Amino acid sequence: MRILDVKNFSVPGYKAWGIHSGIKKTDKKDLAIIFSDREAAAAGVFTKNRVKAACVLHDIVRIKSGKGQAIIANSGCANACTGKRGLADARLTAETAARELGIKPEAVYVASTGVIGELLPIPKLATGINTAVGLLSATGWEQAAEAIMTTDMYPKLAIIQEEIGGKTVTVAGIAKGSGMIHPNMATLLCFIVTDAKISAPMLKKALLASTEKSFNMITVDGDTSTNDMILCMANGAAGNRRPGAGSKDSKKFQACLDAVARSLAKQVVRDGEGATKFVEIEVRNARNPVEAKRAAVTVAKSSLVKTALFGEDANWGRIMAALGYSGVEMDEAKTDVYIGKTKLVEKGLGQGKHADRDATLALKQREIQIIIDLHKGKASAAVWTCDLSYEYVKINAAYRS
Amino acid sequence: MRILDVKNFSVPGYKAWGIHSGIKKTDKKDLAIIFSDREAAAAGVFTKNRVKAACVLHDIVRIKSGKGQAIIANSGCANACTGKRGLADARLTAETAARELGIKPEAVYVASTGVIGELLPIPKLATGINTAVGLLSATGWEQAAEAIMTTDMYPKLAIIQEEIGGKTVTVAGIAKGSGMIHPNMATLLCFIVTDAKISAPMLKKALLASTEKSFNMITVDGDTSTNDMILCMANGAAGNRRPGAGSKDSKKFQACLDAVARSLAKQVVRDGEGATKFVEIEVRNARNPVEAKRAAVTVAKSSLVKTALFGEDANWGRIMAALGYSGVEMDEAKTDVYIGKTKLVEKGLGQGKHADRDATLALKQREIQIIIDLHKGKASAAVWTCDLSYEYVKINAAYRS
Repeated sequence: MRILDVKNFSVPGYKAWGIHSGIKKTDKKDLAIIFSDREAAAAGVFTKNRVKAACVLHDIVRIKSGKGQAIIANSGCANACTGKRGLADARLTAETAARELGIKPEAVYVASTGVIGELLPIPKLATGINTAVGLLSATGWEQAAEAIMTTDMYPKLAIIQEEIGGKTVTVAGIAKGSGMIHPNMATLLCFIVTDAKISAPMLKKALLASTEKSFNMITVDGDTSTNDMILCMANGAAGNRRPGAGSKDSKKFQACLDAVARSLAKQVVRDGEGATKFVEIEVRNARNPVEAKRAAVTVAKSSLVKTALFGEDANWGRIMAALGYSGVEMDEAKTDVYIGKTKLVEKGLGQGKHADRDATLALKQREIQIIIDLHKGKASAAVWTCDLSYEYVKINAAYRS
Repeated sequence: MRILDVKNFSVPGYKAWGIHSGIKKTDKKDLAIIFSDREAAAAGVFTKNRVKAACVLHDIVRIKSGKGQAIIANSGCANACTGKRGLADARLTAETAARELGIKPEAVYVASTGVIGELLPIPKLATGINTAVGLLSATGWEQAAEAIMTTDMYPKLAIIQEEIGGKTVTVAGIAKGSGMIHPNMATLLCFIVTDAKISAPMLKKALLASTEKSFNMITVDGDTSTNDMILCMANGAAGNRRPGAGSKDSKKFQACLDAVARSLAKQVVRDGEGATKFVEIEVRNARNPVEAKRAAVTVAKSSLVKTALFGEDANWGRIMAALGYSGVEMDEAKTDVYIGKTKLVEKGLGQGKHADRDATLALKQREIQIIIDLHKGKASAAVWTCDLSYEYVKINAAYRS
């Protein structure tokens, strides 16, 4: 597996671009198009929020075909809580794009992110789609990634190559995140494309598995959005032999998809709203995988833990308190906590000023690892999160203004 | 029922005081004593966190007797995650106080709040108990309330009188809160005393009912502490006829206890860490009371909702999103949302700029009411919370320094 430079990459058979169409009040890009020159297998993962944006409702129906050829994504307006009008607008967006691209409307997926409760400015969008289609480029991924940003500080891209079925196969993706990031899932848009030839059912299975190991392992603020989606297209342009179920090739493909998804998920956390720290929280030796993950997520979500991380304060009591209310089977007198390489807590007890000082040094780094050993079983899980800073409050207090 | 002024109140048969004993690094008060001149019926409610402070473990055993005569509470050190040594220290604190007060150690309850993982400075505490016992006063409640404060901005007191069983009965209490406030429960210490004559089992039942309607309806940051407790003593000094189960007098007593608990719970939220707003979130017409409360708590806990409240931004989409991931049965197209008197959302749709402007005006007030009508059933619930401000982050980033 080769990790490639994200600068000016291309994926055989695909074009992309991003422009400013006028949805955002600023002059920032707000409309992205991804296009495959042939019909591709398609799979998707969508928000579990009961309140689903119109684009999500639209795509959930379309994805049943297992096929797709284009994605139209806008930032600045979520087209959520917009009722029947919103659904009609999502459909209209897909139809407009289909006409401009010369493909079937059924092959077009739509995605939106931004303020909830506002209607899409359809005339601007129609003009924008026309312009963007004219600019589509094999190396337009960075423009597309920029156009789906909301409070993100930088675009998120990843690309990997691997030999599969006798050919070089490329897997690449773009994502946006920043706020409302939480397992199952985030205001997260992620579009992954590959030139691999692979069946739609296998693509779906692989995407679900990758999501579980990546985007469902991150949390920024515990809020789950109305608009989250991960879409994946596989257009077969690589001309590889189609991998069989359980084959070595299918495992290689899974590894590539995992790597792209994990890279993008980590980028989303690194760029969490106001984040100054990237934090991995690993829970070891829980009773079972569900409890391992629940314990890790509870610690990762705690506002008190996150503000202590921002303050570079090795306040391990807050970690213990979060474990205690996580609902998982734990015993204070068996629990160890490490920050970096420092064992800060052994069998529930602090290890003194020396350990405290070493842990505080580790907290001064940009990347922090916290390991919690419950000594209750054999299951482990790692989640990624960031700290809670003044900046998070500032960004979210003023989001609509 | 008469609500009395909290200035210099007294409750027949009780004395209280608070001093600085040297547990806190500053010169602020950190040790409180509450003493009844006779044995009282006693009841308690304790944190459900699996990680319980030594004082909680100590009191949970003692409360089984249904009796008590004194409470020793310190701030500055939580005596949590301190193992066997911590338990021995809690016991020693009770024994020291019992000797100074001339009562049985079994009648003494201990409570702590502050940093987790540090040991109590027993010599300072012993000297402090000696001093405080010498200063005990019938009107020393404000001093006691100050001595249990951590990041609280002001002491919290409440007092009520009512005619019960032929006599004037007083119910009064003090509380501290501020951070780690969340249903079931908070770093919340609350001590309620009454001169009512009432059986221990009835007192326990009444306290549980009051807690459910007060402290279990508030949330500041979603974190549940290791040290929470509500203790209640009833010493019978009023000489009233003991109320029978289900009697009019027992209902009057319940109403008094409810009023004191609710007053203190609201004070805790008003003084939430960094709070600039007091927010009541009421969910109406949910399928059942559990879902009504869960929906209200989910909205109240959302960092995105709380930062929008801080920013005085009527960003109702975040309320809809929180309802959507709350796990309760809801239908976007049936949901109405009011801020103050303004209907901001009807059947899932925003009501336009006019409504937005009116709601924004309501958000500029210090006290805000949000009503969510799910139109799904007949159950309702109201919870109280505050906004999430820069100050919350600042307080918690620097808490130990």
